[in-house]
Amino acid sequence: MSMQNRQTVSLDKIHITDEFWSRYLDLVQYEMLPYQWKAINDEIPEAPPSHSIENFRIAAHEKEGAYYGALFQDTDVYKWLEGVSYILAQRCDSFLEQQADKVVELIAQAQCDDGYLDTYVILHPEYERWSNLMEGHELYCAGHLIEAAVAYYCATGKHMILTVATRFADLICQTFGDGDGQIHGYPGHPEIELALVKLADVTGNGAYLRQAKYFLDRRGSGKNWFLAEEERPGFHHQFPEFADYDPRYSQSHLPVREQKTAEGHAVRAVYLYCGMVDVAERTQDETLLRAAGTIWDNIVGRRMYLTGSIGSSGVLERFTCDYDLPNERNYSESCASIGLLQLGIRLARLYKDASYIDVAELALYNTVLAGVALDGKSFFYVNPLEVVPETCMSHTSMAHVKPVRQKWFGVACCPPNIARTIASLGLFVYSLEDATVFLNFFVSNTADLPDGTHIEVKTDYPRENTIEVMMSEIKEIRTLAIRVPHFARNYRVILGSQEIPYAKTLHRGYCHIALDGVQTVSIRITFEAPPVFVRANSRVAADAGKVAIKRGPQVYCAEETDNGKPLSAVYVDTSHRPEEQRAENGVVTVHFSGYRRTGNSTALYSTDDSFIMEKTEFVAVPYYCWGNRTPGEMAVWLKELIRLPDEGKK
Amino acid sequence: MSMQNRQTVSLDKIHITDEFWSRYLDLVQYEMLPYQWKAINDEIPEAPPSHSIENFRIAAHEKEGAYYGALFQDTDVYKWLEGVSYILAQRCDSFLEQQADKVVELIAQAQCDDGYLDTYVILHPEYERWSNLMEGHELYCAGHLIEAAVAYYCATGKHMILTVATRFADLICQTFGDGDGQIHGYPGHPEIELALVKLADVTGNGAYLRQAKYFLDRRGSGKNWFLAEEERPGFHHQFPEFADYDPRYSQSHLPVREQKTAEGHAVRAVYLYCGMVDVAERTQDETLLRAAGTIWDNIVGRRMYLTGSIGSSGVLERFTCDYDLPNERNYSESCASIGLLQLGIRLARLYKDASYIDVAELALYNTVLAGVALDGKSFFYVNPLEVVPETCMSHTSMAHVKPVRQKWFGVACCPPNIARTIASLGLFVYSLEDATVFLNFFVSNTADLPDGTHIEVKTDYPRENTIEVMMSEIKEIRTLAIRVPHFARNYRVILGSQEIPYAKTLHRGYCHIALDGVQTVSIRITFEAPPVFVRANSRVAADAGKVAIKRGPQVYCAEETDNGKPLSAVYVDTSHRPEEQRAENGVVTVHFSGYRRTGNSTALYSTDDSFIMEKTEFVAVPYYCWGNRTPGEMAVWLKELIRLPDEGKK
Repeated sequence: MSMQNRQTVSLDKIHITDEFWSRYLDLVQYEMLPYQWKAINDEIPEAPPSHSIENFRIAAHEKEGAYYGALFQDTDVYKWLEGVSYILAQRCDSFLEQQADKVVELIAQAQCDDGYLDTYVILHPEYERWSNLMEGHELYCAGHLIEAAVAYYCATGKHMILTVATRFADLICQTFGDGDGQIHGYPGHPEIELALVKLADVTGNGAYLRQAKYFLDRRGSGKNWFLAEEERPGFHHQFPEFADYDPRYSQSHLPVREQKTAEGHAVRAVYLYCGMVDVAERTQDETLLRAAGTIWDNIVGRRMYLTGSIGSSGVLERFTCDYDLPNERNYSESCASIGLLQLGIRLARLYKDASYIDVAELALYNTVLAGVALDGKSFFYVNPLEVVPETCMSHTSMAHVKPVRQKWFGVACCPPNIARTIASLGLFVYSLEDATVFLNFFVSNTADLPDGTHIEVKTDYPRENTIEVMMSEIKEIRTLAIRVPHFARNYRVILGSQEIPYAKTLHRGYCHIALDGVQTVSIRITFEAPPVFVRANSRVAADAGKVAIKRGPQVYCAEETDNGKPLSAVYVDTSHRPEEQRAENGVVTVHFSGYRRTGNSTALYSTDDSFIMEKTEFVAVPYYCWGNRTPGEMAVWLKELIRLPDEGKK
Repeated sequence: MSMQNRQTVSLDKIHITDEFWSRYLDLVQYEMLPYQWKAINDEIPEAPPSHSIENFRIAAHEKEGAYYGALFQDTDVYKWLEGVSYILAQRCDSFLEQQADKVVELIAQAQCDDGYLDTYVILHPEYERWSNLMEGHELYCAGHLIEAAVAYYCATGKHMILTVATRFADLICQTFGDGDGQIHGYPGHPEIELALVKLADVTGNGAYLRQAKYFLDRRGSGKNWFLAEEERPGFHHQFPEFADYDPRYSQSHLPVREQKTAEGHAVRAVYLYCGMVDVAERTQDETLLRAAGTIWDNIVGRRMYLTGSIGSSGVLERFTCDYDLPNERNYSESCASIGLLQLGIRLARLYKDASYIDVAELALYNTVLAGVALDGKSFFYVNPLEVVPETCMSHTSMAHVKPVRQKWFGVACCPPNIARTIASLGLFVYSLEDATVFLNFFVSNTADLPDGTHIEVKTDYPRENTIEVMMSEIKEIRTLAIRVPHFARNYRVILGSQEIPYAKTLHRGYCHIALDGVQTVSIRITFEAPPVFVRANSRVAADAGKVAIKRGPQVYCAEETDNGKPLSAVYVDTSHRPEEQRAENGVVTVHFSGYRRTGNSTALYSTDDSFIMEKTEFVAVPYYCWGNRTPGEMAVWLKELIRLPDEGKK
């Protein structure tokens, strides 16, 4: 392993020209961010109140009033600002920039003289700063402030918000540490670790990196900070569900370097692991990196849904145990998949291993995109793999599952998180190391590499599996490493007009193409990724006897609107190959054969053993676009018709 | 429908001689009640503290101290006393009687001068009586006090506890009503309705019946009482989960006569419905009875588990919607099945229809009995139909499910409820109306009917399906109506030594045998009830493609200890008949053929389509005795191997 500072193409040097993704970028710029702007300004009558801008106004003494909203309502503003930043880095948008500048001024106005900034705490004078790291979100909010500040500064060159962030970060560095009078604690919700590393990178101030490392080193070592907080006189829980606190919830049950499994609240978990990788990378901390890698393997090998989502328990939105992957009552939060995507990108870059991108891509093309409606106007927080709408009842154990996307949430972490993730897509496409450029995501774009090399990618992936790469004015780049997805069949590399045998250059999922001595090169990659049936490990009880359909990185699902209901009556005949078909709207659907089982009895239970197996053709659509038509049942995993060896194909 | 006061054989007139049930009665008398006595006295070190007797001591000024425990901790004492009463009605037990007499004195000491009695409220002077009917359990506790008092008085003839109960009931009658200065409310947790009817029956005081009717008439009519409570200044929730209160939770969403579906907390629901039937029966209120019957049909036809359990949602322990019957995360509380049993017995008696007994029997022989270990020492609260032990993790949505029975619960409603139910078995066996005696449950016993007729039943049901009934000294009884279970095949009635054609006398599940002019009669019933495969309605997604095994009233399940794991890999071959076998310990096991599917891939997800279907013989045990050996997986519903018409039997 070699550890270098991260390098990628900055957003002002890449232009996304992709049909699929440009539409999403447009949605972010013209629909989601303006809508979210209205939402955080409480200008959408039918949405639950946000009050996030209002809280800042009150904290900034612009207005009178009381705080309203979740503890971490500030982050809605910060994530909006971060999303705006990524758009502004790529595109001009004077409306968004004007609003953002105003927001920045407002945030600066709300900041305390000593640099502290959290409107919940500022507007609750009886609440002592940092007194409840278990449940409080001050450090979490600080992290999102810092991420937004770094993004806005990088996009616009304007210093004001960066100054706000560094002033707060300086206060945090002063406040938390092993020194006398310092707090020896760490955040209940990780996020600041990865943010402080970004701040160290952009400011060159190593203190922020050291502070991030401090939080990681302290976490879960010695007496658990949160259990100690609970014992303090006067401590009372903000959230009743935190009584009988389980340190696993916040990944503080063990020192982070000793953790081997993904535990607790899934978003907290992946944000923490990202911070671990970031600090490990910059401090050459192999133990820390290895721990993150071990946990990753646990997630990907035992605790992740086929759709790249995580968090099997609706209660506490958390990981449970190996192979426990219920499809209808899981949490699988959009934000957790965003964190998983981020973690995969980091590990891929560090290990120069494309298998991490395969997982990141799974999260992006399935769960992250499923989180937003095709029109950008409504959102999923929770991403089940199976829905029977009438069972998603309030005041039951299924209350967290929504069968249709919601306009805006009271706790609105997901919509702005999805927006900032899509807006920052350009940052994921490439990674750079020495004289190698890695092409991770197959997205049409033109980009200028730091050495001046111009690169252009044209593709209609994942609908088609041809990727054309044109490089010109090649200067210092010596190698182009193109990802070979694990699902690619018959992967071919055509250099100019000649196919090249690339097998020998295949290393950790990248095909390495030497560019020595050329100034211009044209490469065409083709592979096949037809729809295939996927089965889960037999230890996954929820998927036993079932199959799913996957085509390239996209998982498919059956919807009631195409296939009737109940979907639990569908048996897939896997002896017939599934066939793809491009619909008029450009979506690739998959058609497969099977049977619909119909019982004869209307009784609840019956010994009647007669039933009909009606041969039927079914249709599956990509998971990311489920729930965009008439609401109804949805299922990723469907029963497989089993034929015994003497009776059928097996 | 004719409505008469209920009539059954009182416990002092029936002697249970049944091998299966005598063992349970012994367990109740010698194991459960003495154990529970220790538990409520905090004499079991490894069990969570109960403090229930202690609360009474403090309220009675025998001791200093503070209240501890759930709001309704008093009912543990009352249910224990009720269970003891049923034992004392049948058997001498001077130890239990002495303890019970002491408890009665203690309860009387704790009662306030005006008759009020609830140690939680007495020991929380700041808590205003009846101020929170939504969450408070004062009327619920009063109901259990009354039930215990009636039972103890009937068993021993001692008046003291009945006086306590009537004094409290008088206060309640005074307090609740439509008059000026009265509270126009009704209990958040029904129970007092059925208890007041019992008190009316035993005291002959119609005021108690009118009070029960008042609570039913008020419930859900006009402005919801609980929502109104919430709006009162100073109201605060005792339970955070009751914020955003759903009136369905307490069946107060509609006037009870307009309710058509079973809603909300399952125990509350069935206790309410029992009260409705009781009041309907005694007030000739057809509308009220019809409502209870409609709700019953909804439960039995759409919302009940095969095991006679109810409550699909772990959150709020409640009914959800039609056909929503998840097997692994349900609540299916033992207490709810006790209520369902009670409801079935009431409806069977009123309608003289044995189909209600079929359901009551299902609840009794499966869920109620599964609630207690074979040694009587540990208990289930929640009764899943499928368990993968490692997924039943604390701090997750599966935290309510326990893969092994627990010693005693902090909220200990179920163990004493099971004890009192088993102890009162004798009350369910017969029902009487005019000159007809109905034999409902096939339990060996000898009994003296009110007219002096002696009756004796000998059977080894449900292990064997022969029932011998000997009647002698027949006086006024003219008809013996013996239940014909819906699952009985080849039901035969042999009178003396001659088989009689009984088809014409079959009415609503009872075969009516005329006893005109005889003094002595000997009847032998035989039928067959071999193990059969049962399928659920195709609208039950959780059971789609699966079968269960039932033998007579008993549902079977597969356990890991017999069949290995994962049980999700088992496919039942329903073309082979399941076979029963009597094990050495007397338990009838069922053996069936099938296949175990084993995948080849160790990956979490794979496109490898090879797998092995290994022909295997499996064993199922009665559901009531699951979890009495090595802990492991358990499943009632198993996958069915489907053969297509051209490939196999169908």
